[in-house]
Amino acid sequence: MLVIIGLGLWDEKDITLRGLEEARASYEVFLEAYTSRLFGTTAKQLEAAIGKPVKEVGRDFVEGGKVLEHAKSKKICLLVAGDPLVATTHTDLILRAKEKKIPVRVIHNASVMNAVADTGLQPYKFGRSATVAQWEQNFKPSSFYDVLAENRARGLHTFLFLDIKTDKDRYMTANEAIAALLLVEAEKKKGAFTEDTEIVVCARLGSPQQLIRFGRVKDLAKQDFGKPLHALVVPGALHEMERKFLESL
Amino acid sequence: MLVIIGLGLWDEKDITLRGLEEARASYEVFLEAYTSRLFGTTAKQLEAAIGKPVKEVGRDFVEGGKVLEHAKSKKICLLVAGDPLVATTHTDLILRAKEKKIPVRVIHNASVMNAVADTGLQPYKFGRSATVAQWEQNFKPSSFYDVLAENRARGLHTFLFLDIKTDKDRYMTANEAIAALLLVEAEKKKGAFTEDTEIVVCARLGSPQQLIRFGRVKDLAKQDFGKPLHALVVPGALHEMERKFLESL
Repeated sequence: MLVIIGLGLWDEKDITLRGLEEARASYEVFLEAYTSRLFGTTAKQLEAAIGKPVKEVGRDFVEGGKVLEHAKSKKICLLVAGDPLVATTHTDLILRAKEKKIPVRVIHNASVMNAVADTGLQPYKFGRSATVAQWEQNFKPSSFYDVLAENRARGLHTFLFLDIKTDKDRYMTANEAIAALLLVEAEKKKGAFTEDTEIVVCARLGSPQQLIRFGRVKDLAKQDFGKPLHALVVPGALHEMERKFLESL
Repeated sequence: MLVIIGLGLWDEKDITLRGLEEARASYEVFLEAYTSRLFGTTAKQLEAAIGKPVKEVGRDFVEGGKVLEHAKSKKICLLVAGDPLVATTHTDLILRAKEKKIPVRVIHNASVMNAVADTGLQPYKFGRSATVAQWEQNFKPSSFYDVLAENRARGLHTFLFLDIKTDKDRYMTANEAIAALLLVEAEKKKGAFTEDTEIVVCARLGSPQQLIRFGRVKDLAKQDFGKPLHALVVPGALHEMERKFLESL
């Protein structure tokens, strides 16, 4: 049996009692350490909280199917930052487990999509999310800009995840994301992200060190938002209450 | 100080360690018991888990501002089913606390919007959510149908909350919601919800007794999905993987 357990947003205290109980009842505890990670804790601290060895595993182990080998005869668990199925979808893994007749259970937890409600923006008014990718010599993706433009045209808010490269310990900053978006704007010219666009910069969402700042792109572009993770929100049409909340931050 | 603590989806084991710690460190513990409730536990069981008296409070206490009177000089907490800011937005309360210079902290948790990912539908493809309301003699709302039609036109999935009347202990069933939607369809005729529409019925999302069923309206309309809470999802355009997942349920 495979139990996929969401760890929530910050440290070892964000796991639920049910998640902790399931981890303790597992024969082996694996920590998914490639799509994201918790910034307020370490595998060692998780081990101490759970009282069992915690083995960090990479993409190979999870997507290559080794995790399912372990789950065939014994109950094991896979710890995942945030919610296991929201920002990172592990549905493919669940599907393959089902094909092998391995029972799967998901223990949900808060994801950044929950914590972003701390901006005061109404959750139901968020359109599709997207991830801002860094442009490279031969790789210039811009679909995140198209998603943003589409949401804005419909008055919806857009949550923008920023590029994460856990293997290189590189996490795109809000400043880098702003620069990337302005670059695409200059090319596509749909007016979805200009110097005058009002945006929300979120840093360390869901942590005690959370920072949320609202303002125009030109005023936020050069500010320092501190340690990762960062994210951006581009609001769509703002209700009076939403604006009031943002301005109170 | 006011700490608003999400309880997660089912019972007293769904609280996070951080939430439990904050509740235990509070001078008074209030349970918001009017926008939703946990179906797998009681205030008594929460009391036992927290080790403190838990006082159930209604709309008057929270929205009337009494809760802020209590938070003025002492640290108190308000327990809320699910995530405090996702399905139910308590942002108005936070705004009023800020005006009174009362510090607020939110401890997030999983909401139904996390658990719905168990359908295999990709979270980023959900459009606006809406709540299906029961038609009454002089009250025939249909904005939920318009939201659905708008999402479908754009290929997005729609999560439909069903009417909750906690004071009367009445929770709309999926069958009632299907009937309500067909009624509006007959009037508005946009084809957003017909006998042939593929839908997902979710019952007791996030609980060990969770049930998710995929099929056409005509095939699901008369089935019994058991105890509350129920919810509906109307998928938009389905990726191959999403359909495969739904059909595996």
